[in-house]
Amino acid sequence: MSAKIAVFRKEHFNAAHRLHNPHWDDATNKAIFGKCNNPHYHGHNYELIVKVIGEINPETGYVMDMKVLSDIIQQHIIERFDHRNLNEDCAAFKNLNPTAENIAVVIYDILRKEINQNLDLQIRLYETERNFVEYPALSQNF
Amino acid sequence: MSAKIAVFRKEHFNAAHRLHNPHWDDATNKAIFGKCNNPHYHGHNYELIVKVIGEINPETGYVMDMKVLSDIIQQHIIERFDHRNLNEDCAAFKNLNPTAENIAVVIYDILRKEINQNLDLQIRLYETERNFVEYPALSQNF
Amino acid sequence: MSAKIAVFRKEHFNAAHRLHNPHWDDATNKAIFGKCNNPHYHGHNYELIVKVIGEINPETGYVMDMKVLSDIIQQHIIERFDHRNLNEDCAAFKNLNPTAENIAVVIYDILRKEINQNLDLQIRLYETERNFVEYPALSQNF
Amino acid sequence: MSAKIAVFRKEHFNAAHRLHNPHWDDATNKAIFGKCNNPHYHGHNYELIVKVIGEINPETGYVMDMKVLSDIIQQHIIERFDHRNLNEDCAAFKNLNPTAENIAVVIYDILRKEINQNLDLQIRLYETERNFVEYPALSQNF
Amino acid sequence: MSAKIAVFRKEHFNAAHRLHNPHWDDATNKAIFGKCNNPHYHGHNYELIVKVIGEINPETGYVMDMKVLSDIIQQHIIERFDHRNLNEDCAAFKNLNPTAENIAVVIYDILRKEINQNLDLQIRLYETERNFVEYPALSQNF
Amino acid sequence: MSAKIAVFRKEHFNAAHRLHNPHWDDATNKAIFGKCNNPHYHGHNYELIVKVIGEINPETGYVMDMKVLSDIIQQHIIERFDHRNLNEDCAAFKNLNPTAENIAVVIYDILRKEINQNLDLQIRLYETERNFVEYPALSQNF
Repeated sequence: MSAKIAVFRKEHFNAAHRLHNPHWDDATNKAIFGKCNNPHYHGHNYELIVKVIGEINPETGYVMDMKVLSDIIQQHIIERFDHRNLNEDCAAFKNLNPTAENIAVVIYDILRKEINQNLDLQIRLYETERNFVEYPALSQNF
Repeated sequence: MSAKIAVFRKEHFNAAHRLHNPHWDDATNKAIFGKCNNPHYHGHNYELIVKVIGEINPETGYVMDMKVLSDIIQQHIIERFDHRNLNEDCAAFKNLNPTAENIAVVIYDILRKEINQNLDLQIRLYETERNFVEYPALSQNF
Repeated sequence: MSAKIAVFRKEHFNAAHRLHNPHWDDATNKAIFGKCNNPHYHGHNYELIVKVIGEINPETGYVMDMKVLSDIIQQHIIERFDHRNLNEDCAAFKNLNPTAENIAVVIYDILRKEINQNLDLQIRLYETERNFVEYPALSQNF
Repeated sequence: MSAKIAVFRKEHFNAAHRLHNPHWDDATNKAIFGKCNNPHYHGHNYELIVKVIGEINPETGYVMDMKVLSDIIQQHIIERFDHRNLNEDCAAFKNLNPTAENIAVVIYDILRKEINQNLDLQIRLYETERNFVEYPALSQNF
Repeated sequence: MSAKIAVFRKEHFNAAHRLHNPHWDDATNKAIFGKCNNPHYHGHNYELIVKVIGEINPETGYVMDMKVLSDIIQQHIIERFDHRNLNEDCAAFKNLNPTAENIAVVIYDILRKEINQNLDLQIRLYETERNFVEYPALSQNF
Repeated sequence: MSAKIAVFRKEHFNAAHRLHNPHWDDATNKAIFGKCNNPHYHGHNYELIVKVIGEINPETGYVMDMKVLSDIIQQHIIERFDHRNLNEDCAAFKNLNPTAENIAVVIYDILRKEINQNLDLQIRLYETERNFVEYPALSQNF
C-alpha cells in the first residue's frame, strides 16, 4: 500500500465581521471581545488554505485537479463570503459568532459535501498573518 | 554634503469599509465599485509603511528613533482606524470615499503634522497583497 | 496643484525560458549564461507589479480602477506569457534574449499602449524572490 | 522517553516541465491538463521544504546538522533538478508525469536513502505560492 | 463528539547567541558548529508560532482568546528573550546549547505551565526563513 | 536614448550588534537606545537588497550579471558581516554605532568601489520585517 499525499490550494477573501454574543449584555461583550466587538464592524483579508489528502491517480499524477479544487472553493466559499459582511450577509453566521474558529468549521462543513469522501480534508484560515486556525486538528497529547 | 537616507516603519490595522459616491444612484455605484459597494461593508488587513527621509544624526546614528515613529503611527493612525468602520466611525471619511488612494492621503496629512518638517514623508498602503498605493509619488515621465 | 499618487497591481505568470545569444558559439553562451543556457529550458514563477502614477479622480477616489488595470494585464500580458515558453511561443522574444530586463521592457512597451498617456507607468518583475528588475528607473547619481 | 522534534530546511530550484500522459491523445491531454500541457513547456520556482523528525543529540543540541541536510539536498536534488527541464533532462520523469505530487514522491525517495533511517522524513513542495503538496501525509479521517 | 481545532499565534524576538559545547576543545567546536561558534556571538530575528489545540467554547467561539495567548507569550517568552544574549543573559541556556531545537523545547516547557492542561501545545520556531523547528513532533514512520 | 533599468539582488546575513554611544553615560545610552543597548548584544537576520541602475547591454540582455553581483556581495559584505558581532568583529563599526542607517552607508561605501562607476547604486537593508532603511534616498520635498 502506498502512502497518502496532501495537496493544498490557497485562496483569499475580504470580509467584514463583528464578534458578539447576543445572550450577553454590552459590557460583557466589550470585556470579552474588546475592539472586535465594535458595532460598526471591522474587516480582514482572510487567507484560506484547503488541504486534501488522498492517493495519487496514476493516470494523471494528481490527487485531484487543483483547477477543480480552486473552482469548488471559488463557487462555494469565495462567492459566498468575499466582499461580504459575515454577520449581516451570510446565513451561516446568523446564529454563530464569526470567529476564525467558527468560520473554519463552516468552511469545512461546506467543502466536505463537495469533495470526494475518499479524500480527507483540512482547513487552515488566516485572519491576520499573526492569528490563524486549522480544522480539524489531531490531538497531540502524546 | 552627505546624501539623505530613508527609514521605513511597517504597521497594520484591520478595518471595514465600503466604496460609495452619494451623488450617484445605486446602479451607477454598483457599476463603478462592484462588490466594493456592498452596503453592509467588507474589510481588509491594511499594511502601512511609513517612509521618512533625512540625514543621519551623528550622535545617535538614527534619522529618527523608529520607536518614536512607531508610537506616532500608533497614536495617530492605528488608534483611529484599527478595528473600525472607516465610513461610519472615522470623521475623515464622512465625505470622502475610503479608497486606498484616499486613505493614504488622509494618513499622510495626519502624519505630516506630527513629523519634523526637515524630514520628507511618504506613505505606502497595502489594501491587499495585490493592490497597494504610494503617496506622494514622483512623476516618472522621463 | 495636488501631488500625484501611485497605484500598484500585482499579477503573476509561470513560463519557461532559456538565455542564449545566437551570434555566439556554444562555449561562449555556456560561459556567459551558465545554467540559464540549458538547451531544454528551465522556468520561473514570474511576479509582476505594475505601477501607475497619476492624480486621484475626485468622483471615484481612484487613479484608475484596479479591476480595469488587472483586466488589461490579464488580457495583454498573462494571456500572452502564462504557461508559455518565452523563446518558442512568444514573438517578442524571437530575436530578443528573455532576460528579466528584456521581459520587463517588453511588458512596459505592451502596457504603455493600453494605459492612458496622462498616467506614468513603471514595471517591476521578479524572476525569483532574490532577482528582480524595475523599468524605467530614474538615475540616482545625485 | 523524550518527545521527538522536527527540523526543517528550505531550498529552491527553478525548472521547466510539461504535464502529459503519452497513453492519451492530444485532445484528452489538453482537456485534462489545460495550459500545463503546452508542448513547449512552462516553468516554476519550486520551493522545497524538507522535514526531518528525530531526537535531539545532547552533545550538539541538533537533530541533525542543518548544514549537512542542506548539502544533501544540494547534491541530490538541486544539482539534479535546478535549471533543468524535468521531462527532458531528468531520468526520474522519463515515464512519470512531473506533477507536484510525483516530484515530491521522487524527491522523498531520493532523500530517504541519504538520511539516517532513525529519522523520519517528510517533503513539502511549492509549485506556486498557491499550489503545494506534502508527502507522506497522515490520513486525517478521525 | 466534535473534532478539535488548532489556533496559532505568531510573535517574534531578536536575540544573540553562540553555539558551543564546553566539554569540547576549540577545534572540535569550530569543526562542528562552524560560523555559529564565533566567540563574539551572532544573532537572529526569531519568529515564534504557538499552536494550541482544543475544543471551541460555544459561548465565545474561541479555543482560547488570542489576546490572552499573546499576553502569555509576551510576558513569559518575549520579555525573557527579546534583545537578549541567550548564552549570557538567559538562565535556561547557562548549561544548554541554544540551538533552535533547544530553544523550542525551553519555550515549550515554559508555556506548558501557563496554558490550560486541557489544551495541547506545539511550538514552531524560525531561526531563519530557511531553518526552523517544531516541537513536539509526531513520528511519521507510518 | 533609451531609459535606464534597475536590477536588484537580495542576500542576507545574521549578525549580533549593540547600539551604544561611548561619549554618553550609561543612563543616557539606556534612555536613548533602550533594549538595543543591552551590553551583551542581541541580533538580527539582516536582509540586504542591492539595486544597480544602468542600461541593458544588447549582447547579453543584462545590466550586469546577477551572478557577478551576488559574488561581489558575498565576497565583500556577507564574508565580512555574516555570523559576526558587528561591534566586536568588524573594523567599520569600531567607532561607528551599528544602526541600520550606518550599516547601510557602510555597505554602500564598500560596494560603490566594486561596481562599475557607470552604474548607479542603492542599498536597502531590513533589520526586521518592520524596520528598514534605504540609502541613498532622493529628497521627496516636491
